[in-house]
Amino acid sequence: MSLTISIDAMGGDQGPQVTIPASLDCLKHNPNLKLILVGDESVIKGLLPNDLSPYQDRLSIHHASQRVEMDESPSKALKNKKDSSMRVAINLVKEGQADACVSAGNTGALMATARFVLKMIPGIDRPAIISTLPSIHGHTHVLDLGANVDCTAEHLFQFAIMGNELVKAVEGIENPKVGLLNIGEEDTKGNEQVKAAAKLLEASSLNYIGYVEGNSLNAGPIKVDLIVTDGFVGNVALKSIEGAAKMIGTTLKEAFSKNIFTKIAAIVAYPVLKSFKQRIDPRLYNGASFLGLKGLVIKSHGGADRLAFKTAIHLAEVEAQQDVIKKISEQVEITLALRDIA
Amino acid sequence: MSLTISIDAMGGDQGPQVTIPASLDCLKHNPNLKLILVGDESVIKGLLPNDLSPYQDRLSIHHASQRVEMDESPSKALKNKKDSSMRVAINLVKEGQADACVSAGNTGALMATARFVLKMIPGIDRPAIISTLPSIHGHTHVLDLGANVDCTAEHLFQFAIMGNELVKAVEGIENPKVGLLNIGEEDTKGNEQVKAAAKLLEASSLNYIGYVEGNSLNAGPIKVDLIVTDGFVGNVALKSIEGAAKMIGTTLKEAFSKNIFTKIAAIVAYPVLKSFKQRIDPRLYNGASFLGLKGLVIKSHGGADRLAFKTAIHLAEVEAQQDVIKKISEQVEITLALRDIA
Repeated sequence: MSLTISIDAMGGDQGPQVTIPASLDCLKHNPNLKLILVGDESVIKGLLPNDLSPYQDRLSIHHASQRVEMDESPSKALKNKKDSSMRVAINLVKEGQADACVSAGNTGALMATARFVLKMIPGIDRPAIISTLPSIHGHTHVLDLGANVDCTAEHLFQFAIMGNELVKAVEGIENPKVGLLNIGEEDTKGNEQVKAAAKLLEASSLNYIGYVEGNSLNAGPIKVDLIVTDGFVGNVALKSIEGAAKMIGTTLKEAFSKNIFTKIAAIVAYPVLKSFKQRIDPRLYNGASFLGLKGLVIKSHGGADRLAFKTAIHLAEVEAQQDVIKKISEQVEITLALRDIA
Repeated sequence: MSLTISIDAMGGDQGPQVTIPASLDCLKHNPNLKLILVGDESVIKGLLPNDLSPYQDRLSIHHASQRVEMDESPSKALKNKKDSSMRVAINLVKEGQADACVSAGNTGALMATARFVLKMIPGIDRPAIISTLPSIHGHTHVLDLGANVDCTAEHLFQFAIMGNELVKAVEGIENPKVGLLNIGEEDTKGNEQVKAAAKLLEASSLNYIGYVEGNSLNAGPIKVDLIVTDGFVGNVALKSIEGAAKMIGTTLKEAFSKNIFTKIAAIVAYPVLKSFKQRIDPRLYNGASFLGLKGLVIKSHGGADRLAFKTAIHLAEVEAQQDVIKKISEQVEITLALRDIA
């Protein structure tokens, strides 16, 4: 089955310098993939190789005259940038010309534009951002990572329903273990929203395992496939983990750079340190999906390099291949129907 | 100046097996320190060396017949354990026989008992838990770490006032940089409580630097001395960092254990890895203070070992020496008085 993905070629800190090489890498890797590079045609052409024959008809350019800046306000982007590479890439999904779109642009503008263009799945109140973190048990999917600062129990429940379908589809597992992020595992712990969400999850058909704590994101006592939280807590947790990893990496580098003896040790340990670094390389976890919309939008980290952006495109391929949006929509309909009966 | 600290000798996963050796270590280290070991006298005596002459009159035992279990509910502990080692250790602070108390017992029971026995500082609505995290800039103090799941802007403001005094006292700096934890640095980001707390902090005499993100806990763009957040977010962030550190440590260990070559590399790199591990050793950051009470209570991690518990006692020494509670009380009075005038 052939897949088409639209790429916001101008998005991200580095823009086309990163998005175009990463796109070509993906085309080489997957012969069933078609990409539409959206952005300033002359800039894109200038960065493409002269010989495009290896990509045959799998690569096309769709001109867009504007670019959403990384610090532009979502409302301004929505109002004034109707021909931005970001907006046009999303339009292609809306029109059915692309199965998914990938952008490394400004998160707020991307979310606002995607929501405006694609609209919400009926029954879902708010979109949520889901991504994957490495864990000692493999990896863990987490949502919401920052789209919603205040969430009701019902919102958290909807996130769980959507996340569960995504995990089933991309991981190929029947009953993902779903945990609710809290500050303790006992029933008495947590705020009112979390306690009420726990009741909704217990009564649901999901494989809800109960409360999990922050350490479960990377290294909990048991494997958890999906962790549900509100966007404030999820975003702080994600960035706290990024900070911890950075501090540990910096400290390790300093320890190996201290003097001539530690530098010799670094040379001997180089292959080990390299394989260690690869195992937890955040570029291999780049890409977050916006769930709740009637189309697939993948957000890449703004500072993504070629490898990281390639990972985000690959995520779009997997989710499009698995028809994640359709599966979520169907499950939401079923959940609502069952609730109406009950 | 001599200092007296009461030790809940029975608290923690290991109880007196850890608290007693750690206490003796501290007495050896600081000749001005007096410790009162609170708990089952026969158990404590059995674990002390026969020759106590090196400690002269600096070590005493205060018998307490009960022990609060690690999973006991705070309300049961408060009602039924009036002669627990935890309660009696706190009573000694209340009665002025000790300048501070240290416990590795159950956090909920310790907080409830401390609040009941010591009472709140007038003008402070809720106690908060503050601790220190290592950072690439040195270290960062953070509160609240789990005492309060829902906080108003006023609560966050009070936490900032208290934390600021503590940081001034223990770090010996004039104007600590105070940041408010949020999901972005722009004014538009965050929930209502955080936005309102930002206004209170901007209008205050504190050196408020604005919003900071989760990565600032360990590795932000600039040094932040104090980070303020509610107990739900703070607790999740802290445990997320613990999980990240555990995953990275496990991955590093696996990389060095893979085969004979990596094991040789591990031997060569051993001194470097050891110094790296020491630099981020969580045991050197053990100990959280309960702020807002009219007495000094330090909570050690329940799973603390000898070194970790020693760190918690040392924290109590520093805070008692600096008269942190008196400084906080005075500052709260000043803040309230100025507000009444305004």
